[in-house]
Amino acid sequence: MEEEQRPGVSAGEPATTAPEPECKHEDCVEDPENGTSSLEQPLLKRSATLTASHLAIVGAKVSHIESLDYEIIENDLFKHDWRSRSNVEVLQYIFLKWAMAFLVGLLTGVIASLINLAIENISGLKMLHMVNLVREKRYWAGFFYFAGVNFALTFVAAVLCVVFAPTAAGPGIPEIKAYLNGVDTPNMFGAPQLIVKIIGSIGAVSSGLDLGKEGPLVHIGACLANLLSQGGSGRFRLRWRWLRYFNNDRDRRDLITCGASSGVCAAFRSPVGGVLFALEEVATWWRSALLWRTFFSTATVVVVLRGFIEVCRNGRCGMFGEGGLILFDVSDVEVRYHFADLLPVTIIGVLGGVLGALYNHVLHKVLRLYNLINARGRLAKLALALAVCVFTSAGLYVLPFLVPCTPCDPAFGEACPSTGKSGNFKQFNCPPGQYNDLATLLHATNVDATRNIFSIRTPTEFRLDSLFIFLAIYIVLGLFTFGIAVPSGLFLPIILMGSAYGRITALLLSKFARGIDHGLYAVLGAAALMSGSMRMTVSLCVIFLELTNNLLLLPITMFVLLIAKTVGDAFNPSIYEIILDLKGLPFLEPKPEPWMKDLAVGELAAAKPRAVTLQVVEKVSTIVAVLRSTCHNGFPVLDRPRPGVSELHGLILRAHLVAVLKKRWFLHEKRRTEDWEARERFSSTDLADKVGTIDDVDLTPEEMDMYVDLHPFTNTTPYTVVETMSVAKAVVLFRTCALRHMLIIPKFQGPEISPIVGILTRQDLRAHNILGAHTTSWARSLTWQTRGKRTERF
Amino acid sequence: MEEEQRPGVSAGEPATTAPEPECKHEDCVEDPENGTSSLEQPLLKRSATLTASHLAIVGAKVSHIESLDYEIIENDLFKHDWRSRSNVEVLQYIFLKWAMAFLVGLLTGVIASLINLAIENISGLKMLHMVNLVREKRYWAGFFYFAGVNFALTFVAAVLCVVFAPTAAGPGIPEIKAYLNGVDTPNMFGAPQLIVKIIGSIGAVSSGLDLGKEGPLVHIGACLANLLSQGGSGRFRLRWRWLRYFNNDRDRRDLITCGASSGVCAAFRSPVGGVLFALEEVATWWRSALLWRTFFSTATVVVVLRGFIEVCRNGRCGMFGEGGLILFDVSDVEVRYHFADLLPVTIIGVLGGVLGALYNHVLHKVLRLYNLINARGRLAKLALALAVCVFTSAGLYVLPFLVPCTPCDPAFGEACPSTGKSGNFKQFNCPPGQYNDLATLLHATNVDATRNIFSIRTPTEFRLDSLFIFLAIYIVLGLFTFGIAVPSGLFLPIILMGSAYGRITALLLSKFARGIDHGLYAVLGAAALMSGSMRMTVSLCVIFLELTNNLLLLPITMFVLLIAKTVGDAFNPSIYEIILDLKGLPFLEPKPEPWMKDLAVGELAAAKPRAVTLQVVEKVSTIVAVLRSTCHNGFPVLDRPRPGVSELHGLILRAHLVAVLKKRWFLHEKRRTEDWEARERFSSTDLADKVGTIDDVDLTPEEMDMYVDLHPFTNTTPYTVVETMSVAKAVVLFRTCALRHMLIIPKFQGPEISPIVGILTRQDLRAHNILGAHTTSWARSLTWQTRGKRTERF
Repeated sequence: MEEEQRPGVSAGEPATTAPEPECKHEDCVEDPENGTSSLEQPLLKRSATLTASHLAIVGAKVSHIESLDYEIIENDLFKHDWRSRSNVEVLQYIFLKWAMAFLVGLLTGVIASLINLAIENISGLKMLHMVNLVREKRYWAGFFYFAGVNFALTFVAAVLCVVFAPTAAGPGIPEIKAYLNGVDTPNMFGAPQLIVKIIGSIGAVSSGLDLGKEGPLVHIGACLANLLSQGGSGRFRLRWRWLRYFNNDRDRRDLITCGASSGVCAAFRSPVGGVLFALEEVATWWRSALLWRTFFSTATVVVVLRGFIEVCRNGRCGMFGEGGLILFDVSDVEVRYHFADLLPVTIIGVLGGVLGALYNHVLHKVLRLYNLINARGRLAKLALALAVCVFTSAGLYVLPFLVPCTPCDPAFGEACPSTGKSGNFKQFNCPPGQYNDLATLLHATNVDATRNIFSIRTPTEFRLDSLFIFLAIYIVLGLFTFGIAVPSGLFLPIILMGSAYGRITALLLSKFARGIDHGLYAVLGAAALMSGSMRMTVSLCVIFLELTNNLLLLPITMFVLLIAKTVGDAFNPSIYEIILDLKGLPFLEPKPEPWMKDLAVGELAAAKPRAVTLQVVEKVSTIVAVLRSTCHNGFPVLDRPRPGVSELHGLILRAHLVAVLKKRWFLHEKRRTEDWEARERFSSTDLADKVGTIDDVDLTPEEMDMYVDLHPFTNTTPYTVVETMSVAKAVVLFRTCALRHMLIIPKFQGPEISPIVGILTRQDLRAHNILGAHTTSWARSLTWQTRGKRTERF
Repeated sequence: MEEEQRPGVSAGEPATTAPEPECKHEDCVEDPENGTSSLEQPLLKRSATLTASHLAIVGAKVSHIESLDYEIIENDLFKHDWRSRSNVEVLQYIFLKWAMAFLVGLLTGVIASLINLAIENISGLKMLHMVNLVREKRYWAGFFYFAGVNFALTFVAAVLCVVFAPTAAGPGIPEIKAYLNGVDTPNMFGAPQLIVKIIGSIGAVSSGLDLGKEGPLVHIGACLANLLSQGGSGRFRLRWRWLRYFNNDRDRRDLITCGASSGVCAAFRSPVGGVLFALEEVATWWRSALLWRTFFSTATVVVVLRGFIEVCRNGRCGMFGEGGLILFDVSDVEVRYHFADLLPVTIIGVLGGVLGALYNHVLHKVLRLYNLINARGRLAKLALALAVCVFTSAGLYVLPFLVPCTPCDPAFGEACPSTGKSGNFKQFNCPPGQYNDLATLLHATNVDATRNIFSIRTPTEFRLDSLFIFLAIYIVLGLFTFGIAVPSGLFLPIILMGSAYGRITALLLSKFARGIDHGLYAVLGAAALMSGSMRMTVSLCVIFLELTNNLLLLPITMFVLLIAKTVGDAFNPSIYEIILDLKGLPFLEPKPEPWMKDLAVGELAAAKPRAVTLQVVEKVSTIVAVLRSTCHNGFPVLDRPRPGVSELHGLILRAHLVAVLKKRWFLHEKRRTEDWEARERFSSTDLADKVGTIDDVDLTPEEMDMYVDLHPFTNTTPYTVVETMSVAKAVVLFRTCALRHMLIIPKFQGPEISPIVGILTRQDLRAHNILGAHTTSWARSLTWQTRGKRTERF
């Protein structure tokens, strides 16, 4: 993304020696649909030297990405702004932070409730009508009705997604993770994404596709947070004066963290789980204050959800009841463990790890294949989505006819059989008094299916062959649905698969599984598979704790999660890491690799092109040349206090240079300005806004000959490391301090030595990039890599 | 603690010019009982220049404190150790980490259960016998029996505490907080502390003193963690080879975090709350991996506690039943809010904030007074503890006689009146069919009292005057009990006070409080007062969530906590911060003050004495002189690659210098050694051990004339900042990277300029110290201070 070359010659030298454009300017521009991918190679090309890729796949499109500025930019203008802030303004800021957190929770809660309401009603009506047709034995009509409605719903979702917001496809969680790690992907958190995500989610989930609304809800929360912090989207932006406090990446990051937690909370009605999910899986930086604010958001969500359920209690919202939310409440079940339960529980854990890792592996391959298809254009995307929809509809409709009907056990009472929308023991094509167990699972929304398979005190409800058919179809659907161009979450497909294999394990080992209900085994299976695939632990544990509302299940859940994660980690990384890697998003891992201890940052700098530097009072033409010929986002600024002596003054951002050029704040002579001169023309708000690119700047030849004083815009306190610093420690510094640029200074300075050795960015510190640019001196490092892989995960 | 002077003259110059001892060596030695305190001034003297205090009050004694080395020391020996570690060793290390976390949880759970068992039995028997004497109308005999037993129990606890482990007094949480922030207090986490804490806790709590076992349990968990990581205590240490991996401050920090969470979990049976308590209140650095490990520990604790309850279910453990643990389970209560409830709930929140802040304020004064008393010696401490015990016994015994008996409401059924040990509606001195409501609260263990006042569906149980008497006596006791020399927690006294005022509010506003049970108001009052005093939020919320086991209470708990914290923050800092400050522990706050942005680290360095530096091949006598004349713990090491040129080679720790001197690894000539020479004599384990002080080293005059090559022991990659870096950013760097020393390098280097401007430690970066050393150039900074105070807390 941003990146510099080695020093020596400053760009401030005569403008004729402007640095050669190592990274062509065209690369900086969005490069649509140029799929350089193949099944065997990474989707994005990687160069052999330590240069950075500015491109990543965002919504199946190759796009330009940028880093975020979480660092406090200490330049003169911003410093003046802090100093002049009054107490009232500080209080406004604090109030607004809390108000925003509240609004994020409120809106996420309302939207989640409305989505649930829409899904329950649409798919409920669809199911009822289809079942009626089947009961009239009009099987073909039933099929065409079922498939037709699903087709139409998927069509709406896919068209919206393909035409208006390609980035709204998928769950959005990897991109949020990348954002909070410091990578900005374009068009990810805007109003189109939000709207498409909401409508698309309703369409996709109601159409019976094997995907969840959970991931999209997290993305919806993040979109809301981003829009609120900006006062709206694009042209319709609210220009409220208070909002200027939020015009920085740091506050936006905090709010998006609140949004992500709210989304998880809305999905699982799990306030603590939502916060922990954000803490464990999504966020890279965390503060105690943020803990409290995210919790405030999730509590608001819970209140809103509860309010909706309260209002809709007596069928006032059509088919939306309590059903849309609580998945599995077993607070009234007395759980007692026997030692014999240890065997099936362990098996569930181990299988969860193995299956989760296998799922990650195969999904990776499928996503590569789908990327090839999606790269062929909009029609291909649409066709793929619709093909998956037709296949899903056919499978869901036809399969229940393959299994025999089961007579109702009198113990189940009136509940069996049911002909309504959401009950257990669906009668479907069976005579009265019997039920079709496979229809119970397949002819329901995904949430209802989960509830049915989780149901307790029903050990005889499901036949083994039905469960196997269910597992098989959902494995196929789970693998082939995720990559299509509709908003789709991964949670529910994995929960469905996991619950099926959990219940199968309980049936097969029923002589060992005496103490624990088969429904609980389904829950444990779901937890194990999620842990095996997503490798989350504490947040999953708490989400399941809040779902089951039973503390007694905690130790056994934990045991299963621990086993599944350990087994899964032995095979491959988590599914989110795989997706991040596939998309080429430069995610910084929390721990440096062990071999990084043996590498100095100076060696990294040596492998890079020279850094482009600017003089503290610089010619306009030089600045324009530098900005046009490079796509770096930060430039070291050098000063010459005495002739022959060069000193590092600080670092200036590309955005600030562009702002200066756009305002045409030029000097006729080469001089240092007074503080008030810049403050007269620039406010900190001008600098905080992202005003466009260098291409928008059009200067006359006279202006090109003038000078700019960069003193007021230069961050005079960039983080620096000495060239002998080990890469391991530099990575820790870079990540913990949330940097965008890190300057390398020489160990020994002198009149003839440049005061800067190089500049490091996120890309330069990624293990993969460093290893890709291996030179002879780093050869020994490579032997360390394999060992590093193991320690990294613990 | 550690600290350096300005450069210029290196200590490596002729030994005659050894640096003048600015900080006398005597200061480094433990300085027992030199109470320099008065009521008006801080307990520890502060100097006017930016120098560091090496002293803090640890267990009512002024002791020498040290910083911890959380940074990765990259010297040659340690690097060699990492490189030579085999895969098996890496696996051993990972296995051991988990095994340790498990053991910490297991032992904390077992010890917590045994403590509960002992307390319930001892105080149960005491109460029963006393009540029998009262029912026989032998009031004086009852009093002397009651007071006598209490006196004996307190005597045991206080004598143990005063004689064997003065640091076991109090809760220990502030010291754990300081430890995890990077401050090591001596004799805090050893075996004597553990044993005294366990026995002392049993004695103090059973004797009816107004203190809890919750804080001590946290300390017990931390002690266990520390002892396990060291393989035991002192001479009885297990010298297991595997344990060498844990011989560093980083792994010990992680394990102590597990221990603290386990303690909270054991106290409240709240596994998630325990983890969040550690995250929010105790720990300074946090990683995702740690989240999982602490959760593993707390889950183990829960399993153990549950096992004990299961075993003791049918009275097999004397008077220990379920009672010892669950405080308040209302999972079966349907909670519905009315708008009218908003008024009393808000009042409870505001009052909680005000009373909490007031409590902090008065407790601060009382602790100052107690410090004066405690400084007079062991007998004074003992007398103070016993005086408080007698006063408590008298109050608890006499007060119930002041209130009239209440006839039993038939609605309460058989439960009223009770004559047993732990029931509600104590009959005490009343005729049959009546009960004494104050005796119900006062003649019970603190946990039982809490359960009684929390009891639901009993709005008429307590008379208003009884509640007022209860509140009054517990305010007095809560203020005057905490500082005495027995293990004491703050949680329970605050819960008792808070529940009383919550229930009073509910009674007074009973026409508004219709929707919510009075017992719930008591819970809310307890939560509000805790939040008002301790300023914890999320962890409290989750602890109360897990106590009440009812998700519906979450929003209202949150609302109350938020109000109470906000109100409390307007007055003073949290009680733990007050105690930390009172003890003089140099805690680093998470956020820098705003005025720090206007101050450069170079200015800080200028206000300090010159840094003492060493040459990379140094004379033994110089090293000895430096070590004896200063008490710094880190020394910059300079190199002279060419004549006239000085270069920063790295930083060496005092402990490593002492290790070298002790091993007498000296050279006859001034030369650089080969790598293998040092590795032959030293292993990384030798360096990791803390081998003693310079006073243990006794060298001959010949040896004093020899040389030491410091190359293999020098950390060549210390974190550095340029002298123009703002203090605000330096503080962020220092804290997020968990540093002990930070070197300041000059902006421009040259042959005549020293390569090091100064060295910063924790003490130098504390706002209080910087402001204490205000020079003219910093005068403007001071105007910023007040504004800083406000923003800092959000």
